[in-house]
Amino acid sequence: MSALTDLSLEWCPNPDLAEHEAVGSKAYRDGMRSYTGGVSVITAEHDQSRAGLTATAVCSVTADPPRLVVFVNKTVAASGVILNSGALCVNVLAAAQEELSKVFAGMVDGIRGEARFEQGTWKSLVTGSPVLEGALASFDCRVAKVSDEGTHHAFYCDVLAVEGQREGDALVYLNGGFRAVPQ
Amino acid sequence: MSALTDLSLEWCPNPDLAEHEAVGSKAYRDGMRSYTGGVSVITAEHDQSRAGLTATAVCSVTADPPRLVVFVNKTVAASGVILNSGALCVNVLAAAQEELSKVFAGMVDGIRGEARFEQGTWKSLVTGSPVLEGALASFDCRVAKVSDEGTHHAFYCDVLAVEGQREGDALVYLNGGFRAVPQ
Repeated sequence: MSALTDLSLEWCPNPDLAEHEAVGSKAYRDGMRSYTGGVSVITAEHDQSRAGLTATAVCSVTADPPRLVVFVNKTVAASGVILNSGALCVNVLAAAQEELSKVFAGMVDGIRGEARFEQGTWKSLVTGSPVLEGALASFDCRVAKVSDEGTHHAFYCDVLAVEGQREGDALVYLNGGFRAVPQ
Repeated sequence: MSALTDLSLEWCPNPDLAEHEAVGSKAYRDGMRSYTGGVSVITAEHDQSRAGLTATAVCSVTADPPRLVVFVNKTVAASGVILNSGALCVNVLAAAQEELSKVFAGMVDGIRGEARFEQGTWKSLVTGSPVLEGALASFDCRVAKVSDEGTHHAFYCDVLAVEGQREGDALVYLNGGFRAVPQ
C-alpha cells in the first residue's frame, strides 16, 4: 500500500477500472452546476503587491490541525503571489458582498489587479494577506504544502488566525448564479 | 522549487511564518460554521458490502481531466471500503433528501451500516458504487490517488460517469443546520 503515502503515484486497485475512459469536461462541468459552492475571495500579498480571486474551490481538510485546501488555476495572477508569499487568506463572503465577488471574479469590465481592492475595506492579521472587513469569516493561512494538480495548484494551508462577523446571509454559487442562504 | 512537485514535503517560503502557532481546533470549527457546504452522500461498494457517509468535504479539482477530491475521516467504515474498491460515488443531494442525509450522517438512531441503504432507491453505473436516484447529480468515480491528510484520507477521483435530475432545490449545510437553496 505504499501508494497511499506517496502522492506522486497514481493508484487503482481495480484493474477493470484502470483503463476506463473518463467523461468529457463539458459533461463534468454540467454536473458540477448542481453542486452548491460557498463563495470566497482568496487573497495574497507579496512585496506590497496584492492579488485576489473569487473561488468556490475551498474545502476543509482537518480540524486538528486546522487545515484547509484551496485549488487555484495556475494561470491567475494570485497563484504566483501565493507561491511567493507562502500565505493566503480565505474570505468567506456574505450575500451583501455579491458585487465584490463579481469584481474578483473578473466579471466587472475594467477593474483589474490592484484596483480590485478599491472595493471593500481591507486589513491584515498575521500573514499580511488582505483580510476583508465584513466577511462572514476570514481564515488567515500559511501554505503548508502545494501539490500539482494539472491546471491547478492545490494549496494546503494551516490556519494561523480566524475572525469574521459571522452574521448575515451567506453567498453561494449554484447553477450558474449567486444565491443568498440564511444562517 | 522541488517542493512543488513533491507532495511529501511541507513547504514554507516565509521563515517568519514557519513557526507561527495555528489557531485551536475549536476556533477553526467555529469559523467553518460560516462556510456553506453542498451536501453529498459518498458511497462505495466492495465484495457486495456497501457503505456511505454524508459529507460536505467535496471539491472540484480540475475539469480537464474531470477530477474531484473527497476528504473522508479514516475512522468511518466507508473509508476502508473505498480503499478496497478504488471507487466511490458522490451523490449531490436535493433539499427533498434531507432525511436521507441525516441517516447517512449517523443522526438517526438505530440505522447503521447496510440498513442505511433502505432509504432511497439505488442503482449502479460504471464502478458499482451505489448511485442514488433523484440526486441532483451523481459522479461515479475511480480513485486516482490517495493522500494521507492526518485524520483524513484525500481521495482524488476521476469521474467515469455523471448523471442526475438537476432540478429542484439543493441541500446545503450552514451554521449547524440544513438549508434549501433554489436553483
